[in-house]
Amino acid sequence: MTAPPFRKVLIANRGEIALRIARTCRELGIATVAVYSTPDRDSAAVRFADEAVHIGPAAPRRSYLSMPGPIEAALRCGADAVHPGYGFLSEDPDFATVCADNGLTFIGPRPEVMAAVGDKAKVRELMRAAGLPVLPGSDGAVPTLAEAERVASEIGYPVVVKAAAGGGGRGIGIARNAAELPRVLQETVALARAVFGNGEVYVERYVERARHVEVQVLGDQAGNVVHLGERDCSLQRRNQKLVEEAPSPGLDPRTRAALGEHAVAGAKAVGYTGAGTMEFLVDEAGTVTFMELNARIQVEHPVTEALTGIDLIREQIRIAAGLPLAVKQEDVRLSGAAIECRVNAEDPEADFRPAPGRLEVFDVPGGPWTRVDSGFVRGDTVPPYYDSLLAKLVVWAPTRAEALARADRALAEFVVAGPGVVTTIPLLRRLISHPVFAAGRHTTRFVHELLDG
Amino acid sequence: MTAPPFRKVLIANRGEIALRIARTCRELGIATVAVYSTPDRDSAAVRFADEAVHIGPAAPRRSYLSMPGPIEAALRCGADAVHPGYGFLSEDPDFATVCADNGLTFIGPRPEVMAAVGDKAKVRELMRAAGLPVLPGSDGAVPTLAEAERVASEIGYPVVVKAAAGGGGRGIGIARNAAELPRVLQETVALARAVFGNGEVYVERYVERARHVEVQVLGDQAGNVVHLGERDCSLQRRNQKLVEEAPSPGLDPRTRAALGEHAVAGAKAVGYTGAGTMEFLVDEAGTVTFMELNARIQVEHPVTEALTGIDLIREQIRIAAGLPLAVKQEDVRLSGAAIECRVNAEDPEADFRPAPGRLEVFDVPGGPWTRVDSGFVRGDTVPPYYDSLLAKLVVWAPTRAEALARADRALAEFVVAGPGVVTTIPLLRRLISHPVFAAGRHTTRFVHELLDG
Repeated sequence: MTAPPFRKVLIANRGEIALRIARTCRELGIATVAVYSTPDRDSAAVRFADEAVHIGPAAPRRSYLSMPGPIEAALRCGADAVHPGYGFLSEDPDFATVCADNGLTFIGPRPEVMAAVGDKAKVRELMRAAGLPVLPGSDGAVPTLAEAERVASEIGYPVVVKAAAGGGGRGIGIARNAAELPRVLQETVALARAVFGNGEVYVERYVERARHVEVQVLGDQAGNVVHLGERDCSLQRRNQKLVEEAPSPGLDPRTRAALGEHAVAGAKAVGYTGAGTMEFLVDEAGTVTFMELNARIQVEHPVTEALTGIDLIREQIRIAAGLPLAVKQEDVRLSGAAIECRVNAEDPEADFRPAPGRLEVFDVPGGPWTRVDSGFVRGDTVPPYYDSLLAKLVVWAPTRAEALARADRALAEFVVAGPGVVTTIPLLRRLISHPVFAAGRHTTRFVHELLDG
Repeated sequence: MTAPPFRKVLIANRGEIALRIARTCRELGIATVAVYSTPDRDSAAVRFADEAVHIGPAAPRRSYLSMPGPIEAALRCGADAVHPGYGFLSEDPDFATVCADNGLTFIGPRPEVMAAVGDKAKVRELMRAAGLPVLPGSDGAVPTLAEAERVASEIGYPVVVKAAAGGGGRGIGIARNAAELPRVLQETVALARAVFGNGEVYVERYVERARHVEVQVLGDQAGNVVHLGERDCSLQRRNQKLVEEAPSPGLDPRTRAALGEHAVAGAKAVGYTGAGTMEFLVDEAGTVTFMELNARIQVEHPVTEALTGIDLIREQIRIAAGLPLAVKQEDVRLSGAAIECRVNAEDPEADFRPAPGRLEVFDVPGGPWTRVDSGFVRGDTVPPYYDSLLAKLVVWAPTRAEALARADRALAEFVVAGPGVVTTIPLLRRLISHPVFAAGRHTTRFVHELLDG
């Protein structure tokens, strides 16, 4: 047995991803420190970690979004590295810098790379310079309405206005014509200021009907980059992913190869290290355009793990410790098909209103090729302060049709009950059994058209 | 989507294997009928199946071991096939015959094959005739003590006396010298009569230190047979398997190839159809000898599923429906390493006394490459009338060392509590982290020597 890459890792997150990271650390022989807000004090991640430190009250700004808590906890517990998970501080270059200033290895890309790819307008230009196809749009941020109008009339309506600092599907507005642009611009700037503290926006052609296809990349500190194939995340509701799968159905081999090459070229162009995701749009003609580079582990990473057999959290940790990539591009094997269903405590009948509460019944599915990642067990209370993800259900099968049948079987087993608790399970079953989705003919508009059309 | 191979399958079993079969049926679009004894009326399999029929009281002889219950239930519900699972009626050729007489397809080998391989003395002769290596021993059953003494003195002590109708690790006695033989013979005959209703026994050389290595085979009705690699089940306590894994650690490629060839030749020699297991001993010199052919799905089949990606229950069903094997030998890929830990409600400190009860806490592990097959959820009561299997925990990883670390992590997550309930979890963690097991240097005597030595 080789020595673990770190002695002790602090996990600056909560819920299923905190437990996910703690699991791999345990398997690598690395001790773990969990941090928790008051309502998370008895969570599964806290129970499983070797140590746990209270970092504040429920409000994220005073706990998981506040830097001093995890930094002080890491120093006090003698951790030598910090894993940020996804969301919260995971894409904040300042947090990565503060970690480094305190002698802690941040498990993610270098701060300057995070800053560069965090500016969605800037990364668009970097990728264009690297030869990747980007949608027609503004050169960087648009400073004024007049400039936005000029760009929009040049590229043609509809256009999308996006917050440069945006992410997670927020800070996106669509203007269908010139009359709508002033309001959409104003609203997006206001939202971007309020949510991201940065009102910069850019303008791009809006592709009405396309697939969201993203490519998982891994880059080590020696500059090696590999990709692990694509994930299709077209089943979205207001830019929130509901179901993710791999491979992307109906993608022709030439497009698939192009996606992989673009992903590696883009990651290399910015000197990317760690696990990252290159997001693309694939329109109905099969044209690929770059959207953004997410500098974190994604919620949907298990889909790629199922096809490759590679533990992505392990690779993140190894890369951060300076170890070379364990796999060469030609050794990456993609086998079968995998589907992830996000089981949320939300009521689809009430506009996806969060519906948290006490999980009086929480019987998760099991059996062959059925993976459940959840931060909860029966009896836990889902706090209302954070996202409404109850569990990620991930199934694998030799073919997509079998994977769909397996996912439906597993969802049929998944029993969640408690006062006030409503879940997306019935909707997920409806979506994955729908003939349009089963045939792989859906776009990112599919859920909207089904539910609101 | 092709038509399902059957319309409705009755599952003549209980617990995790009944649920396991129902899961695959659901995925194949086949309706299911569960049967249950009174204490199993609210079990997970009963809740998940499409229909459920009460077949008797707790006592197995009046429920799961009694033929009329499942046959009548199948006819009443309009089932067209019966899956027997493992144990109970699964290896009873009479049950297969009664199914056929009632127009029900028995999902398993033909009755005459079951009868032939169910006689352990006879199958030994069939395999010897087919060119497989068997241990020196009697030609078939030994009718008298004088004959047993003659054979034993010819092959040399120690010898093992085995019930011809035995199975599941029962009906085995070891005579270390001539003085012990009369008592061991008498006891084994008595036990065989009491348990199996057949006092026939045979005599074989006893291999003191060996590995239990078995090979999964699949045979279709057209006579095609493939093997899916081996499982190592050497971690046993009194012939009861505790931990199973694949591949068998330390097996050299030549021995592995020989095992595969013997398994296919043996299955072909008896005209085997369906999923079966050829069990072998591999001694410390690497010498392979045939032990027995199990004509059912094995408890430990998920280990093979993890390496191959093949759903063995699906293959059983397809073969019984007359479909050809979906896989050719050259297409079988064995990837990585898998380990199954049997979590039993037993107290290892009290000679493995069953310790069933109400599962007030039953938090199963999750996350990457972690499969749990269980017939229970939190709140269920484990009935004292059947086996004490709470769950099978199966993990996969690219290497054996990683799989061992993953299994230990998953066992650390597995929390079971309730009045009177004791589990094998601490023992399993101790076994899989033991340096002898980690190095793959253990034999079937390892657990005995560790606990009793």
